[in-house]
Amino acid sequence: LSTLPDLEASRPDTIFFLSDYGLHDEFVGVVHAVLRRLSPGARVIDLAHHLRPFDVRNAAFLLARAIPFLGPGVVLGVVDPEVGGARRGIVLGTVARGSPQWFVGPDNGLLVGAAERSGAIETAVALSSTPAGGWSVPASFDGRDLFAPAAAALCGGVPVDTLGLRIDPATLVRLAEPVAERGVLADGRRCIRTEVLWVDRFGNVKLGITVDPELAELLALDVEIAATLERPGGGSFVMRAVRTFADLSDEELGVMADADGNLAVVARERSAALLLDVGPGDLFELSW
Amino acid sequence: LSTLPDLEASRPDTIFFLSDYGLHDEFVGVVHAVLRRLSPGARVIDLAHHLRPFDVRNAAFLLARAIPFLGPGVVLGVVDPEVGGARRGIVLGTVARGSPQWFVGPDNGLLVGAAERSGAIETAVALSSTPAGGWSVPASFDGRDLFAPAAAALCGGVPVDTLGLRIDPATLVRLAEPVAERGVLADGRRCIRTEVLWVDRFGNVKLGITVDPELAELLALDVEIAATLERPGGGSFVMRAVRTFADLSDEELGVMADADGNLAVVARERSAALLLDVGPGDLFELSW
Amino acid sequence: LSTLPDLEASRPDTIFFLSDYGLHDEFVGVVHAVLRRLSPGARVIDLAHHLRPFDVRNAAFLLARAIPFLGPGVVLGVVDPEVGGARRGIVLGTVARGSPQWFVGPDNGLLVGAAERSGAIETAVALSSTPAGGWSVPASFDGRDLFAPAAAALCGGVPVDTLGLRIDPATLVRLAEPVAERGVLADGRRCIRTEVLWVDRFGNVKLGITVDPELAELLALDVEIAATLERPGGGSFVMRAVRTFADLSDEELGVMADADGNLAVVARERSAALLLDVGPGDLFELSW
Repeated sequence: LSTLPDLEASRPDTIFFLSDYGLHDEFVGVVHAVLRRLSPGARVIDLAHHLRPFDVRNAAFLLARAIPFLGPGVVLGVVDPEVGGARRGIVLGTVARGSPQWFVGPDNGLLVGAAERSGAIETAVALSSTPAGGWSVPASFDGRDLFAPAAAALCGGVPVDTLGLRIDPATLVRLAEPVAERGVLADGRRCIRTEVLWVDRFGNVKLGITVDPELAELLALDVEIAATLERPGGGSFVMRAVRTFADLSDEELGVMADADGNLAVVARERSAALLLDVGPGDLFELSW
Repeated sequence: LSTLPDLEASRPDTIFFLSDYGLHDEFVGVVHAVLRRLSPGARVIDLAHHLRPFDVRNAAFLLARAIPFLGPGVVLGVVDPEVGGARRGIVLGTVARGSPQWFVGPDNGLLVGAAERSGAIETAVALSSTPAGGWSVPASFDGRDLFAPAAAALCGGVPVDTLGLRIDPATLVRLAEPVAERGVLADGRRCIRTEVLWVDRFGNVKLGITVDPELAELLALDVEIAATLERPGGGSFVMRAVRTFADLSDEELGVMADADGNLAVVARERSAALLLDVGPGDLFELSW
Repeated sequence: LSTLPDLEASRPDTIFFLSDYGLHDEFVGVVHAVLRRLSPGARVIDLAHHLRPFDVRNAAFLLARAIPFLGPGVVLGVVDPEVGGARRGIVLGTVARGSPQWFVGPDNGLLVGAAERSGAIETAVALSSTPAGGWSVPASFDGRDLFAPAAAALCGGVPVDTLGLRIDPATLVRLAEPVAERGVLADGRRCIRTEVLWVDRFGNVKLGITVDPELAELLALDVEIAATLERPGGGSFVMRAVRTFADLSDEELGVMADADGNLAVVARERSAALLLDVGPGDLFELSW
């Protein structure tokens, strides 16, 4: 339970804010206002707020893939279907230097994978429910009342131990990993079975498998890939391994390494997700 | 018509920006750019921009409930169906310390309730239509051309009297208060008749009644509440008084004090508004 | 190929960010994070991100009309259907003082019109594909990997020639100008034939024609304007020249100079676009 001196000594000045609050209400703005009041010098960067309400797993994937690009700071993550219930609020601190060192939010699996992508978890604290913001606290807006004040406190150099009690990182709630199986079919073809993690605004279909050197080599070969969508009426599709969208004709489906290093199914200036009628959780078998 | 010396001496450095501009167009971004140019050091916090176009009353409620969390600064509020017409542009100054002291926008009821929640109105000025931004001014984008320059001027310490002429706060346009009646039914049951103010992103139904100590006591008792929706085909519902979402089973409707201290009808990880088919303006009778 | 000394010496501290990334994904947030890391002191202003995916022409019009209000800085514009393909990444520098001097993004017509509205193009550079951000670079997120680092470098005072090779501005890709024809009909009536450029959130229909003094005079006269929508089933409409929305009755369609100085078709607290069933690209003939 020791802490690196320089984690405690860090005075982060950037807060990365992720939630399922949407922008329809004043929730995101009010959290910004609280952060401004409690930590006037911090810059707040909105990572995403239009996440599917209550979908912790999708939010956790999004946060983890953003980590390599964030720089040092505090991640404030709030997708929190059990707000007011028994789940803990937590602060995680990592040994990271060039990426976020602190993670604040509910203990429901949202933060732990991203924290570990940032660096080894050095510190884990269960937030005291004592409000740090100075107002009376209802049970339904911990983003404003508990998590934002804790994030601001970390920016202000408040020792993490004043925010709650140390907990064993092994007790943190964890989510199921994405389906990502690799093998060989009876006919000798190589095969991947994986899950749709995300459909982006352009309809690109992000799969739950990372492009390793072997896959990168395959994608460089301009091969045909057979894809089967594992669900009633899912169908089979022929796709082409490509480097980027511009390598596709208007009629083709492509498989490429996307900007996060995941395998993705794409089309050219069209939505692959609409063409295939897929969304998060759907399973693909790809073979070549 | 005197002014407190320290209101005049304040140099706010935060602007809270609320509008019905949406984020589909460049309107919000251009207002930010104008504020950046005219008041480079001010931080601009977006409270909400996806408000229903022209719906001044809903915007006024949203702004008023955000006030306790905002900290000192200037509220720039623009929901302005009569832009270019005869309605006045106004600046209101309050005696507040820990919350916004200045309010800039149209005189259509949007600002006055929020200003009074912030503190007593000390100063009211009708904005001169002379452009403060330095460009020729059309009649349809006062948020950019009149209100943002006025907000920036206040941040810069410009005396409010240079922005226009003092007016009597009694002449400010005011909106109807929410329906919020309390009584006793013929059979002795206590009863509340109130209006739906807002449906949030999660489908929680915010009602136009504040949770006072008597209601708080009721909500702590785990009682059943009978709800009637007053409209053709509205129907009757049984709800349960709860402290938070997590106290509900998946099938129940709950009544709780929401994060703003309003009474709200909620469900667990589902939209109460969709279940009940209600929206702003619908009337509920609750009894117990 | 000389450069004004004071363009090179400028150290802009504001980045205006425009994209078709939407806010559904983490793309915009990650670009903000990259800018924060590489240029910690710069302020980033979001101009618009909900642009129609891949619609370069609409984005170019939006950016050009925002220019007069932006103040000095760097425009980071990313609507980039050919990302990863053969199109160049560019930096344009203009002689502007009070408006953006630098423009960074793809060479597909998005930037050049806006840059020229800002000032004469003094410098044009084709971005080297060498990543400036310090991570390995896929071929599908140049906003994050190439353009944001270049914008940050300009804010940091890095000489533009270190970012790539000079190119001839005459070689920049340009888009078709809006349809904007003026003439006289057989019966002597004056006539304008023009294109719908944009429909804003309120349903106002922005046309591809600028209000010059002659048109301004017409609009001041309260005349009737006959409008024909040039498409099968388009129909004919009577509109009234007005100064602003508030001059219209609830039943009327109006023609006015909008806040950008374009001619626009409007209604009062209703969507003119819905009433007329029009969108970008539709052609109107107006006569009086």
